[in-house]
Amino acid sequence: MMWMNQPVPALLVAGGEVDKLPLQLLVVFGFAKLLAEVAQRLRMPGIVGGLVAGIVIGPSGFGWIQYDELLHAMAELGVMFLLFQVGLEVKASELVRVGKVALLSAVLGVALPFVAGWAIMVAAGHPQIESIFMGAAMVATSVGITAQVLASKGVLSHRTAQVILAAAVIDDVLGLLVLAVVSSMARAGGADWAGLAVSTVVSVVFVLAVAKYGSRTAGLVVPRLTQSLRVDEAEFAVAVTFLFVMALLATYSGVAAIIGAFLAGMALAETASHHLHTLVRGAGELMVPFFLASIGLQLDTSVFRSGSTVVLALVILAAAVASKWIGCGLGAFSLGWKDAARVGAGMVPRGEVGMVVAQVGLKAGAITQPVYGVAVFMAVLTTILAPPVLNFLYKGVEPVPRSSPPPVELG
Amino acid sequence: MMWMNQPVPALLVAGGEVDKLPLQLLVVFGFAKLLAEVAQRLRMPGIVGGLVAGIVIGPSGFGWIQYDELLHAMAELGVMFLLFQVGLEVKASELVRVGKVALLSAVLGVALPFVAGWAIMVAAGHPQIESIFMGAAMVATSVGITAQVLASKGVLSHRTAQVILAAAVIDDVLGLLVLAVVSSMARAGGADWAGLAVSTVVSVVFVLAVAKYGSRTAGLVVPRLTQSLRVDEAEFAVAVTFLFVMALLATYSGVAAIIGAFLAGMALAETASHHLHTLVRGAGELMVPFFLASIGLQLDTSVFRSGSTVVLALVILAAAVASKWIGCGLGAFSLGWKDAARVGAGMVPRGEVGMVVAQVGLKAGAITQPVYGVAVFMAVLTTILAPPVLNFLYKGVEPVPRSSPPPVELG
Repeated sequence: MMWMNQPVPALLVAGGEVDKLPLQLLVVFGFAKLLAEVAQRLRMPGIVGGLVAGIVIGPSGFGWIQYDELLHAMAELGVMFLLFQVGLEVKASELVRVGKVALLSAVLGVALPFVAGWAIMVAAGHPQIESIFMGAAMVATSVGITAQVLASKGVLSHRTAQVILAAAVIDDVLGLLVLAVVSSMARAGGADWAGLAVSTVVSVVFVLAVAKYGSRTAGLVVPRLTQSLRVDEAEFAVAVTFLFVMALLATYSGVAAIIGAFLAGMALAETASHHLHTLVRGAGELMVPFFLASIGLQLDTSVFRSGSTVVLALVILAAAVASKWIGCGLGAFSLGWKDAARVGAGMVPRGEVGMVVAQVGLKAGAITQPVYGVAVFMAVLTTILAPPVLNFLYKGVEPVPRSSPPPVELG
Repeated sequence: MMWMNQPVPALLVAGGEVDKLPLQLLVVFGFAKLLAEVAQRLRMPGIVGGLVAGIVIGPSGFGWIQYDELLHAMAELGVMFLLFQVGLEVKASELVRVGKVALLSAVLGVALPFVAGWAIMVAAGHPQIESIFMGAAMVATSVGITAQVLASKGVLSHRTAQVILAAAVIDDVLGLLVLAVVSSMARAGGADWAGLAVSTVVSVVFVLAVAKYGSRTAGLVVPRLTQSLRVDEAEFAVAVTFLFVMALLATYSGVAAIIGAFLAGMALAETASHHLHTLVRGAGELMVPFFLASIGLQLDTSVFRSGSTVVLALVILAAAVASKWIGCGLGAFSLGWKDAARVGAGMVPRGEVGMVVAQVGLKAGAITQPVYGVAVFMAVLTTILAPPVLNFLYKGVEPVPRSSPPPVELG
């Protein structure tokens, strides 16, 4: 019917805008899975394939798929389910136990990258505000990819995994503060310190309250609620509604939606049934490839026309990897150098969070298009480089058996 | 952070456009599940709750949610998974066995509604082309809702369920032809009969080839492919890729993407593992509520300002129910009047398909806004009325035990 060039195909897809939907779904999902298979055969984590798929099919590759609002939303849903699944495998009490190490690791892992990014940009002759934004973009870790790798290796209960997860939550709060400060510097008026203090308190209280009381409360409420409901798959309905509530509360309190999703999963970790785990995994299996591909899709190699931009990108990338690794590693040095190296490597991926900071800077006119491209390059490449390194560093670490269902395995 | 009115919340959601995502997800999913629970307690199928939720939260209700491109895409994905799940429960050989009854039922179930819709509009003084479009909008059955109700009652193996599913596939091909003809009438040039003949042949060949050879081929290829892959959850990756391929081929050959999804499920029905069923159900549980709500979201009661439009809407609704029920029932009369009534009732919902026809007419300038509103009203109400009727008609029908996994139960 396509060759008839008449309104009939509209019957099939309801509105020309989404004509492309089945094709888009097939290309993104199919390539993510195809390259995940290739990655596995090359003894790399399958997740790398999903990330590379986005580069291959996107503007930097064949240009078949553009990153649009729809893919963005599906990616958001995918990363929410990814973190929710990870949360389901993690007990809050275990995270609280490693709290001090995680706090130190997060603080040093924020300070070093910020200083490194700022110093490099200033040395390269960029304006102060642009340099500060690059530093800010290098601050925030995106823990989804690391969590995925650790889950598929069955080591989420390893103490380094717990430090990484706890540090990532703290890192998100710190990243929020850094972005708030630099955003207000980009505006004429200067920082709104009172507002900043309020949001700090709100976000910290939110995270602590959920981590401390969420599990106990959910353990009391959810099973009873589920039992009293007659709707099909009531446990899934309750769990996913809770996930969306927590994601929303997280954004209202100032932290990322995915932190809410992680906390929601953690609150349900001790009561979730095996059946719920499998249903959530099914939803995740469908949506996560869109998240992975969306990262590579955002890479835009067209900004690398000048040699100096390429050099800047490589220097920034090296600094982003080294400063995070060293900063977080130093913070976790009390665990011994091997585990410290694991924690540092796990915090390296900046993923979607780094890109968002760069977008804010671009919209505020604080950074130029080439510098934006460099920040995105840094965010994408740190994310792609981390899984093979983690794979290597965790070689020989025994999967930790858990009483709960099998580990999350997405690819 | 929201009260600070500064770019910081962008950190949380990457671009103001999707600021609303977690809230949108929560409202749509949460209300669909909440009202499904209410429906179950009123001894109605849970699916009715999902449909009504769309009305409650949409423009006809509180107006919290607008039907946008994103919800449309999620609804598409939801209905694809719904039909895929149904296909997984159905054997092609069983559908072929009821082919003759289904064909007669589908043909009469297309002819009567078309004539009824056209005649009523002409009698009410509407132009010929507008009357013909209303007839066309009343033709196409949307089988998803019925399939859902039958699956949740465990009667997908009942012969009436098989007639309904087979008739729905034939109905979709017929509906395509009717729309092609009326669309070309709406254009100046008249019908392109050669192109029409080609698309008829292509769509019929596609459906027959998949129904006849799909299962055998998939039975040979998929298990071997799955075994040879190293990617995590390989069976799910293969099955979902196959689903998207079939949805795409379906749209290329002229039928709806959901028909491709149904055929894909059917081709895998005999080889799918229990684990695959559960993963697919998880994905469906997440996405289907968006499909259900999207139907109610499209209802627009603002066109009902004049009494004559209200009367027209009610007459058209009554005619749409009666003509489909009687037409399909007559075609299935060889099964006895009880089963004929079940088949007829199962074919009543027009759902998204009827709305698309009306959209085509609106865009072509063939129908006016109030008549478009009437067609949407008809499509939404036939869809909401059918489940309770089916629930009543299938009372006392024993669930048919299957060797394969438990029935699809979404709500």
